[in-house]
Amino acid sequence: MARPRTQEEVNERIERVRRRRPRLLEQVVTLAHGAGGKSSAALTANVFLEAFGNPALDALGDAAVLDLPDGQRLAFSTDSYVVNPIQFPGGSIGDLAVNGTINDLAVSGAIPQWISAGFVIEEGLPMETLRALVQDMANAAVAAGVQIVTGDTKVVAKGAADQVFINTAGIGLVPAGRRLSSALVRPGDRIVLSGPMGAHGMAVMLARGDLDIEADFVSDTRAVNGLVEAVLAAAPDTRWLRDATRGGVGTVVNELAADTDLGVVLDEDTLPVESAVGGACELLGIDPLYVANEGAFVAVVPEAQAPAAVTALRSLPGGEQACVIGVVADDPPGLVVMQTRFGGTRVVDMLVGDPLPRIC
Amino acid sequence: MARPRTQEEVNERIERVRRRRPRLLEQVVTLAHGAGGKSSAALTANVFLEAFGNPALDALGDAAVLDLPDGQRLAFSTDSYVVNPIQFPGGSIGDLAVNGTINDLAVSGAIPQWISAGFVIEEGLPMETLRALVQDMANAAVAAGVQIVTGDTKVVAKGAADQVFINTAGIGLVPAGRRLSSALVRPGDRIVLSGPMGAHGMAVMLARGDLDIEADFVSDTRAVNGLVEAVLAAAPDTRWLRDATRGGVGTVVNELAADTDLGVVLDEDTLPVESAVGGACELLGIDPLYVANEGAFVAVVPEAQAPAAVTALRSLPGGEQACVIGVVADDPPGLVVMQTRFGGTRVVDMLVGDPLPRIC
Repeated sequence: MARPRTQEEVNERIERVRRRRPRLLEQVVTLAHGAGGKSSAALTANVFLEAFGNPALDALGDAAVLDLPDGQRLAFSTDSYVVNPIQFPGGSIGDLAVNGTINDLAVSGAIPQWISAGFVIEEGLPMETLRALVQDMANAAVAAGVQIVTGDTKVVAKGAADQVFINTAGIGLVPAGRRLSSALVRPGDRIVLSGPMGAHGMAVMLARGDLDIEADFVSDTRAVNGLVEAVLAAAPDTRWLRDATRGGVGTVVNELAADTDLGVVLDEDTLPVESAVGGACELLGIDPLYVANEGAFVAVVPEAQAPAAVTALRSLPGGEQACVIGVVADDPPGLVVMQTRFGGTRVVDMLVGDPLPRIC
Repeated sequence: MARPRTQEEVNERIERVRRRRPRLLEQVVTLAHGAGGKSSAALTANVFLEAFGNPALDALGDAAVLDLPDGQRLAFSTDSYVVNPIQFPGGSIGDLAVNGTINDLAVSGAIPQWISAGFVIEEGLPMETLRALVQDMANAAVAAGVQIVTGDTKVVAKGAADQVFINTAGIGLVPAGRRLSSALVRPGDRIVLSGPMGAHGMAVMLARGDLDIEADFVSDTRAVNGLVEAVLAAAPDTRWLRDATRGGVGTVVNELAADTDLGVVLDEDTLPVESAVGGACELLGIDPLYVANEGAFVAVVPEAQAPAAVTALRSLPGGEQACVIGVVADDPPGLVVMQTRFGGTRVVDMLVGDPLPRIC
């Protein structure tokens, strides 16, 4: 991951990153291609965009925004969930599958409405386990005000899948006049983070039992559609939103910088991390900036509206620790830098590899 | 599978079947729960409907039909594809994933528009294989006039999945005034089948190489949205449509009988099966009536419009062998019977178990 560099090194990298197209050199698919970082971007650009390329897909947001013949706009999104273990402190693959797709729709500016559910089940899964996951999905849908309206079940032989994978797709309605786009982002805009970093990824890691750590924290899995609406009401000129899932906040701000060709300057002192999560990360040598969240999102808002956005978030469950974590700047274009607590500056690169596979 | 019974036995079963609610006795999920037959129905009723129950889901069609605030209606559907092998004569998991979801939308009366794609990939899948599948998806989408607009990729470790699973969800627009429902079906209506039975399931079986048979036929995987529109234009009072995938035509007509509480009388002599497919089925002791199709659907049309529906289908690629295979009757309520070539009658029951796992 990122390490401190001199200013000359930073300047050199700026040029390199800007000119770089993600390349795909591997002959086989690796875990890194599913990790949400650099390899994922290369796979998407070189395999999926190349074959499927169309205007809706090319936007590459969390959801496609689609125009109906009558002018109404829909958001449409999908995610597959392969988290291991399927139950972990604070939630399950069922919660994730519903909340994750709701969140992709919400950060696209849509009001989530309908969810589909596709199950791939390994033969032998206890029926009680399936019932529990399905109940988690139903509860999550009710909590967020969406309906699960269509589904499909496939069963594969023992050993052909790992317990259960769930795909959800979702449809949301985009209110008239609402527009969120990285093209609206301007230097001086503030980067707001809705909640503390890293709880989901670390909760899953600990639930695997590979580590001899006892820690008192749970996944942040939750639907953020209510939080998003609060931000949009308090900060009506909000530019762009993204949920900080795979690859964490570090990946989201890198995508922002790359999309806008502007710089993102993070203030290390402001980055919210629960102390127990931070402790677990430190023991494992993992930077919480790259750890997956399932209930936190990044909002870019005009400077003048940032305090209102933060206040609105803090008044709601799941937003209590919202804060401004950085600012958009002219320099360095296309890159993210961190002002460290010691007064230095380092480049925050995109994630390479996959330190935490199957966390969602 | 179904065997000949006396009229007394038939009468007894009528009462039993009518009073039966599908029960779920198994403690673990089995392959049969994913096969589209009796066990699938029990799992759906007892696990998914119980937890997710809402008006849109309860309709239990191939797709949910959803009302937008402005009166426009959408169809929304999903399917996961786990076919093994991932490439087979006539197609691949990529073709299936696009065509299958298009077909679910089409038989719901919708014009398919947008598709999502969620990949769960086993680490080590050759990149060239992935590229080929993705290209098959792109080609299928272009052929059917839909766009793949959003997607997701997860990668799991070697052994945690079998090469690649693909989920697609799809959105279609339902034209104003169009209504298809089993509630519209009346005694005397004709059962039209758009194409010959069993080619897909048998092509996948043979591609597995478990059988020492050489056969000259390919999967019927295709998008049927054009065929569906032709039927609806030629037979505007078409009552109900369903694609005959998992569980085959036998399962579809059983669902029709159960939904309507009417009888379905099939004429064995008219059931279209390509001779090479029929030969392979005979060697394997499999009834083509229960074998999955990926490009054939059942349409229930009023008697007077049946000839026009058949003529319209026969004029299009994939519909050349369309024919009337049976009739809706008052008796026996809720059951399907077959008039055999020898003048007898036998009950055509729902599929029990899964003779052909992972054919889609």
